[in-house]
Amino acid sequence: METLSTNRSHGGVQGVYRHAAAATGTDMTFSVFVPDHEEGARLPVVWYLSGLTCTHANVTEKGEFRRACSELGLIFVAPDTSPRGEDVADDAAGAYDFGLGAGFYVDATEAPFARHYRMWSYIVDELPELISAQFPADMTRQSIMGHSMGGHGALTIGLTHPDRFSAVSAFAPIVAPTQVPWGQKALGGYLGDDRAAWLRHDAVALIERGARFPDLLVDQGEDDQFLSEQLRPGLLADACARAGIELTLRLRPGYDHSYYFISTFMESHLRWHARRLQTGIKP
Amino acid sequence: METLSTNRSHGGVQGVYRHAAAATGTDMTFSVFVPDHEEGARLPVVWYLSGLTCTHANVTEKGEFRRACSELGLIFVAPDTSPRGEDVADDAAGAYDFGLGAGFYVDATEAPFARHYRMWSYIVDELPELISAQFPADMTRQSIMGHSMGGHGALTIGLTHPDRFSAVSAFAPIVAPTQVPWGQKALGGYLGDDRAAWLRHDAVALIERGARFPDLLVDQGEDDQFLSEQLRPGLLADACARAGIELTLRLRPGYDHSYYFISTFMESHLRWHARRLQTGIKP
Repeated sequence: METLSTNRSHGGVQGVYRHAAAATGTDMTFSVFVPDHEEGARLPVVWYLSGLTCTHANVTEKGEFRRACSELGLIFVAPDTSPRGEDVADDAAGAYDFGLGAGFYVDATEAPFARHYRMWSYIVDELPELISAQFPADMTRQSIMGHSMGGHGALTIGLTHPDRFSAVSAFAPIVAPTQVPWGQKALGGYLGDDRAAWLRHDAVALIERGARFPDLLVDQGEDDQFLSEQLRPGLLADACARAGIELTLRLRPGYDHSYYFISTFMESHLRWHARRLQTGIKP
Repeated sequence: METLSTNRSHGGVQGVYRHAAAATGTDMTFSVFVPDHEEGARLPVVWYLSGLTCTHANVTEKGEFRRACSELGLIFVAPDTSPRGEDVADDAAGAYDFGLGAGFYVDATEAPFARHYRMWSYIVDELPELISAQFPADMTRQSIMGHSMGGHGALTIGLTHPDRFSAVSAFAPIVAPTQVPWGQKALGGYLGDDRAAWLRHDAVALIERGARFPDLLVDQGEDDQFLSEQLRPGLLADACARAGIELTLRLRPGYDHSYYFISTFMESHLRWHARRLQTGIKP
């Protein structure tokens, strides 16, 4: 692991790191914020998955998470959203919603994407091992959140690993990718016609097929331009209601899809996570 | 005035605007955050002057000021750091510390810079008139802060207008440009050999020549790469001690010159300003 930068901020250290990732077969860059802590202490870990077009840098620069993480004693990990590199396939037309910056947190099975687009394995298996080895992280206390495509990633990874994560939340998530254009393009492109695989990467479908989590938190701007066509939080609300999952869905008048929205409610999400992380590993 | 963007954030509206500025003879872009407020209310105004290479965007995206401004009821104005445009002269070698992005908050008298580089008049006279006319601003309650070159601007403009500003603070300011390389290059380039003009744009020299302000707040990272050669806060401390100005100079171990540093202490500066702005116009 190579350290690209470290900056002291809000009573901790914001670092950016790069490593050769086996899952993707590429170099991967990510950021980690570690609050000051007692020698030998290990801190809970909050995973933040970013949305379409983003790298680790967007939330690292604009997310306004460090003050609360420092106060609450949380490590904050922000991975990239896709493999990158000269030999990494991209959308044929260079669209923003597929290929580079748009890995959708799946392991692709379709050529030419199957070679490098293995973001599920990278986020679920490989990067946690690196974080555990290189940072003062208590891997028995993890939680996950994300924005838009990254909200989709947080929901699907969280619902698939309810014993690993103490809290799951999202900002303006894609909740049912099998039912919306962004998701249909991505799942078709990465997974082909395998509808069973699609459904494993759809939070609403996972819940309908039995996945459970005690409670979920979602903030959604009412002026989000993607609300009605791509995000459709009502589908998640319906699925949670039927499944007995306590969903706190907060619609925010006037707010859009940007980091101006995310940064406003970041602290509230981190406090939600911290309350649940204090309980440590779940029984 | 043209609105380039508005985004709801932290219980207010973050806007970016452009207007044809008479002072500079160019279009100028700036950002304004206005917290929610009662109909007809007018709010105090905090001016934030940015440093070398910056535009309005750096602090707008990375400054983490909106939460505190919303809580404290402060309008936050972030201007650009120089005129810009195809016919605006730049440093002959394209250096970052002179010309575009480096207006140093002076009215240039030297060709070819005198034509457009009139940032003093723009910040002191023209932009306040626009803010007063277009935003719910209480111009009897203003304060000013800045970073690096913008800290220089905040100190010199504040010390020159003690009746206008209720508070003056800075992050890692250039305090004595006549004595350091950045300042000598800029003042020489914009003002030529007119040493009297140089001294009007040097905070330490202004204080030594009689300028007064009740108290000043400065945060300075101890790991700031520019500390000893360009910033030299000890010169300000000495001048303030001799003049009876109460300087709160907080050296911050481990912090550098970046927005990771600024954002950490932004809220503390805004609270300092808010306490002083509550008193309204000074007698």
